[in-house]
Amino acid sequence: MQVPQVYFEDIAIGQSASFAKTVTEADIVLFAGISGDTNPVHLDAAFAAGTPFKQRIAHGMLSAAFLSTVFGTRLPGPGAIYLSQTLRFKAPVLIGDTVTATVTAMELDPRRKRITFACTCTVAGKTVIEGEAVIMVAARPVEA
Amino acid sequence: MQVPQVYFEDIAIGQSASFAKTVTEADIVLFAGISGDTNPVHLDAAFAAGTPFKQRIAHGMLSAAFLSTVFGTRLPGPGAIYLSQTLRFKAPVLIGDTVTATVTAMELDPRRKRITFACTCTVAGKTVIEGEAVIMVAARPVEA
Amino acid sequence: MQVPQVYFEDIAIGQSASFAKTVTEADIVLFAGISGDTNPVHLDAAFAAGTPFKQRIAHGMLSAAFLSTVFGTRLPGPGAIYLSQTLRFKAPVLIGDTVTATVTAMELDPRRKRITFACTCTVAGKTVIEGEAVIMVAARPVEA
Amino acid sequence: MQVPQVYFEDIAIGQSASFAKTVTEADIVLFAGISGDTNPVHLDAAFAAGTPFKQRIAHGMLSAAFLSTVFGTRLPGPGAIYLSQTLRFKAPVLIGDTVTATVTAMELDPRRKRITFACTCTVAGKTVIEGEAVIMVAARPVEA
Repeated sequence: MQVPQVYFEDIAIGQSASFAKTVTEADIVLFAGISGDTNPVHLDAAFAAGTPFKQRIAHGMLSAAFLSTVFGTRLPGPGAIYLSQTLRFKAPVLIGDTVTATVTAMELDPRRKRITFACTCTVAGKTVIEGEAVIMVAARPVEA
Repeated sequence: MQVPQVYFEDIAIGQSASFAKTVTEADIVLFAGISGDTNPVHLDAAFAAGTPFKQRIAHGMLSAAFLSTVFGTRLPGPGAIYLSQTLRFKAPVLIGDTVTATVTAMELDPRRKRITFACTCTVAGKTVIEGEAVIMVAARPVEA
Repeated sequence: MQVPQVYFEDIAIGQSASFAKTVTEADIVLFAGISGDTNPVHLDAAFAAGTPFKQRIAHGMLSAAFLSTVFGTRLPGPGAIYLSQTLRFKAPVLIGDTVTATVTAMELDPRRKRITFACTCTVAGKTVIEGEAVIMVAARPVEA
Repeated sequence: MQVPQVYFEDIAIGQSASFAKTVTEADIVLFAGISGDTNPVHLDAAFAAGTPFKQRIAHGMLSAAFLSTVFGTRLPGPGAIYLSQTLRFKAPVLIGDTVTATVTAMELDPRRKRITFACTCTVAGKTVIEGEAVIMVAARPVEA
C-alpha cells in the first residue's frame, strides 16, 4: 500500500488539518449533475438576483464535502471510517469564494478508537459551516 | 419567479419526498474532482481490494447531497434555507447502487418558521445514511 | 415510484411550465466534451472575435436541451414520451445569459394521447429559439 | 483563421458527413448537470427498471446534439449558421450505444444561401432520430 497509514495512536488532541478550494461555476454545474440538485439559487442568475443573496450561491453540501476531503486525504487519511458528521450552515458561499475546510481533533475514545473532530469551513476568515465529525481509526498493529 | 413557492403553512408533519439516483463511476470521478477528495477507497480499485469493502465505494457526502437535492427541488423546494444537517453513515454505497434519499417532516416550529426533517438514504431498502435536517421556510405573505 | 405521475387528463390547453438556467463557460466546455461539437465559435475566443457575434456563443442545442428539461421534469414530467421537436434558432446565446425555456400546451389529441406544445427559449425577454414539440402522455388508469 | 472555410458553392446535393460517439454514463451525468434534466429515466436505474425500456436511457437531446456537431465541425463546418432543426425521436439510446449522426444535403437555395439537410441518428443501423435542418452558408467572396 503506497498510502501511509495513520493509526489511532498517531493522533493527538488539538491536531488539525485543512483543505482549501476555490468554488467555480464549473463546480456548481458539475455538482448539479452528480447530485441532481438543480435548485435555481445555484443555476439561475436571474432567479438568484431576486433572493437575499442577490446572486447564485454554491450548494452547501459542496463546501461540506471539503471536510470529507480532509478526513479522507489528510487527517486521518485513507483507511479512516467516517461515522458521522453534523453541519450548521451559517452563511452562503459565492462563486469565486475560496473555502477552507479545517478539522481539529477534540476528543479521543481509545476504547472504541473513535475521534471527534471540530469542523469549520471558512471564507476569508468568516465561518460558513461549522460542525462535528466522528471518525474511527484503526489501532496500530501490535508488533510481535 | 417561475418556480412555485412552498410556504411554511403548506407543510404538514409526516409529509415526505424523495429523490433517487444510481451512483456511477462518473459520479465518483467528478465528485473527486470538485471536492478534491482523492481518497483511494473511491478512486483506486487495487487499493480498495485490500479494504473490508473489497471494492471502491462512493463518497459518503455524495449520497448526503441527495438529501439536499430533495430539500432544494421538492420539499420544501427553492427558497427554503438549509440551516443544519446531521449525518450518520451506516453502510457504504457501491458503484451501481441506486440511492433513495427521503425526507419526512417531523416537527414544525411556527414561531421561527423552522421544520425538522428525518432523513434517510437507502439502497435496496437498507439504510446507508440517517440524520436530521432543519430547514427554514418563509411564511405565506398576508394578503391585503 | 416516488415521482408523481402526470396523466394525459391532467393537462389542459394553455398550461405552461418553465426552466431557466444561466449559461456558463463550464456548460460550454462540458457540452463540447459530451457532444463532440468543438466548433471554434463556442471554444475559441480569438476565432469568435472575427465572427458577427464578436465573442463565443453557446451551442444552440444546449438551450434546446432546456426545453427537454421542462418536459422531463415539470410538464408533463417523468413517464412522458418525447415524440418530436422543431427548433428555429433566432439569436445566439452568450456566456452569462440566463435562458428561460417555456412550453405551453396548444393541442390535445385524446385518441392518441398526444399533446402539442409551443416552445420558446428567451434571454431577457428576447426569443432565441422557438418551436413545437409533441409529447405522448399515458392515460389515467381506469379504477376498478 | 486556421479553420478552412466552406462556402455555399462548395456543397453539392447528396454530399454527406457523419459523427459518431459512444454514449456513456459519464455523458448522461454531465448532460444532466448542464441541462438540468434530472428525469429519473436517465439517472435512476431502479425507476428505469419499471419503464418499457427496462433500463436508463440517454437524453434524446444528447443524440440530437451530435447532428449539430456534424454541422459545426464537418459539413459545412465553422461559419455556418444553424437556422432550424426538426427532430423525430424514433427509439431510445441506451448506455454503451454508439450513435452515428449523419447529415446529407438535400436542397440548395442559391438566392438565400440556404441548404436543407436530411438528418439521421442511428445505432447499429437502426434509426433513433430523424429530421431536417436548414443551414445558411456564406457565398464564396468574389475575387477582384
